[in-house]
Amino acid sequence: MENDIFQLQYALDTFYFLVCGALVMWMAAGFAMLEAGLVRSKNTVEILTKNVTLFAVACIMYMVCGYSIMYGGDILLSSITGSGVVEGEDPATYAPSADFFFQVVFVATAMSIVSGAVAERMKLFAFLAFAVVMTGFIYPMEGSWTWGGNPVFGMYTLGDLGFLDFAGSGIVHMAGAAAALAGVMLVGARKGKYGANGSINAIPGANLPLATLGTFILWLGWFGFNGGSVLATASVDSANAVAVVFMNTNLAAAGGCIAALLVAKMLFARRI
Amino acid sequence: MENDIFQLQYALDTFYFLVCGALVMWMAAGFAMLEAGLVRSKNTVEILTKNVTLFAVACIMYMVCGYSIMYGGDILLSSITGSGVVEGEDPATYAPSADFFFQVVFVATAMSIVSGAVAERMKLFAFLAFAVVMTGFIYPMEGSWTWGGNPVFGMYTLGDLGFLDFAGSGIVHMAGAAAALAGVMLVGARKGKYGANGSINAIPGANLPLATLGTFILWLGWFGFNGGSVLATASVDSANAVAVVFMNTNLAAAGGCIAALLVAKMLFARRI
Amino acid sequence: MENDIFQLQYALDTFYFLVCGALVMWMAAGFAMLEAGLVRSKNTVEILTKNVTLFAVACIMYMVCGYSIMYGGDILLSSITGSGVVEGEDPATYAPSADFFFQVVFVATAMSIVSGAVAERMKLFAFLAFAVVMTGFIYPMEGSWTWGGNPVFGMYTLGDLGFLDFAGSGIVHMAGAAAALAGVMLVGARKGKYGANGSINAIPGANLPLATLGTFILWLGWFGFNGGSVLATASVDSANAVAVVFMNTNLAAAGGCIAALLVAKMLFARRI
Repeated sequence: MENDIFQLQYALDTFYFLVCGALVMWMAAGFAMLEAGLVRSKNTVEILTKNVTLFAVACIMYMVCGYSIMYGGDILLSSITGSGVVEGEDPATYAPSADFFFQVVFVATAMSIVSGAVAERMKLFAFLAFAVVMTGFIYPMEGSWTWGGNPVFGMYTLGDLGFLDFAGSGIVHMAGAAAALAGVMLVGARKGKYGANGSINAIPGANLPLATLGTFILWLGWFGFNGGSVLATASVDSANAVAVVFMNTNLAAAGGCIAALLVAKMLFARRI
Repeated sequence: MENDIFQLQYALDTFYFLVCGALVMWMAAGFAMLEAGLVRSKNTVEILTKNVTLFAVACIMYMVCGYSIMYGGDILLSSITGSGVVEGEDPATYAPSADFFFQVVFVATAMSIVSGAVAERMKLFAFLAFAVVMTGFIYPMEGSWTWGGNPVFGMYTLGDLGFLDFAGSGIVHMAGAAAALAGVMLVGARKGKYGANGSINAIPGANLPLATLGTFILWLGWFGFNGGSVLATASVDSANAVAVVFMNTNLAAAGGCIAALLVAKMLFARRI
Repeated sequence: MENDIFQLQYALDTFYFLVCGALVMWMAAGFAMLEAGLVRSKNTVEILTKNVTLFAVACIMYMVCGYSIMYGGDILLSSITGSGVVEGEDPATYAPSADFFFQVVFVATAMSIVSGAVAERMKLFAFLAFAVVMTGFIYPMEGSWTWGGNPVFGMYTLGDLGFLDFAGSGIVHMAGAAAALAGVMLVGARKGKYGANGSINAIPGANLPLATLGTFILWLGWFGFNGGSVLATASVDSANAVAVVFMNTNLAAAGGCIAALLVAKMLFARRI
């Protein structure tokens, strides 16, 4: 009987991870639509190709070596044999493959941030070459220092310094943003973005329905991203935590939208 | 052991609410795509903006005062402190925040109905001002008389008169439709819709792929809307009920589609 | 207590079927967007109409007679009365209506394959007439010989011959492909596809953002299609199996994408 209850907890937590992971995977579509809507139409196909292929590269690289670097274990073999991800010493409380699935879609999200930042001014294969390095090595290395709990170059652990990260604001978003910043510094601004006298030229997006669709997709995907980051839901406490995360994720997006609307109204009042 | 089983029921019902609520949130994208596809291209950006911002306004207003008016309790504070929505006297059988999340996406749906009805002929901020009133006060007030169980102006309760509402056909759809009708009566028809002699001029939509996408998004979102309205799934009876609702929601949409196709074939036979 | 645990298993498996089924339903949007993006713009509306209506026809025909032919039982009546699908002799381990829901979206998927194959060269009502036959009779008949376990024309069972099918690679995809092949042989190639001397003329798609969106929708929907095909998730073993399926479905899509990219690079190197 006790075993039956454990099995149900295991199954519910696993299913919760898979549903949340699928929602995070769906964010890839959101980034693709948002970015395709906001670039000029001549760059639409290129940004679409990048968004599909970066996701594929991230998944393959994280399987080949990323997950192993970050957490240890041999993913490549286990995914082929179907026996699931190698378990740690503690008995798992959810399917190891569900953990891999939830982790791998986070890697792709970090890389998506770079895609938007260098949009319209980076060649496809140069971008994909960086994606290989970013998702196979950079992200897994910083991930091993943080969620992996490994010491930084064998010296000290970030946990000892008080490092905390819920839902990857550092590991996913700051890592993606740092890579994006490096990329932007290398490739510079879009041609014609700034006038000779420093004036700013608007480069409006070509397809606002796509950009709006991307916004809604990301709004939906965030429920999986943040909600799944509680890492368990099969008890009253964790279910309450997941529910608060869903509620607040929605309210945060709504609040951001209202703030953006009011700022736009103040800055561009004559036009809207 | 009994407590373990209660915890699992609580967790499963909570997760079910969150998944269904996320599907209802996704309907906002459906309304946006459907409406953007069916207006003329000059109004595309305006209708997209309305659909994103009305959703945001609905969420914020329902948090600030709507939920309190409808059910009592202090949501604003609790969402900030993360302690979840205030519970009633009975012990909750699912996370209070999941209840708030599921409720708040319904409010936005009611407001989306208005958006489509007054499309192409209402200014953004006038529309949003009405959204504030509708989602912060009108909907919560009628909601308090119905699902809230409170007496109408302290006089009588609708339940005593035999009022029943599953999934909000009155509370969400009729309320939205009534507001839409009032809006339509105020703003009148689109310029050029009717000729001087009463003839009807077709104003075809500009983007049918978007309209089709919106249709499919709404088709998907309805599973959450109707399926979640069973309000529980962690027993054989409620799981059966939810499954019948999913099955019938799908068949209803399919039947409606076939009926529309046959009617269109009869009325416009030469053209299709 | 044991009954409580059974009820939770039943509820979790049912919810898992419904979520997976909803994801498969969402694939209909994916086919619609993919096909609408890859045809010429003059055929966009026609292919959109086909994709919505074929889904509706599949659902109605499978309700009216398809499910009965495939598995026995009287679906039409039970969906109207709301009592759920008739149960077999063994006590069900999930809601019968959830089974119907999960099955019916598979039928529509088979038909979607035909839609893409005969795109741009088949009239709407001729196509829908075939959809009636395909989803009401052909699919249910081959389905009864395979998943239904019935003997082929009363002579022998495919199971005895060693037939196995996980997730419908034969029942859904080969059946759809066979019907598509028959359709293609009847309608021939698109006008202008081949020159008089056998040269191949590219007919590029008109809307690559739509095609990309369709790709991502299908990527997401496959989690439901393959993941749901494990048919249970409420135990450690089945949860592990579902998780491996999600993980591998994602990696398979990613691997296919990389392979396609490399092949395209080799064949069309000058252009990308």
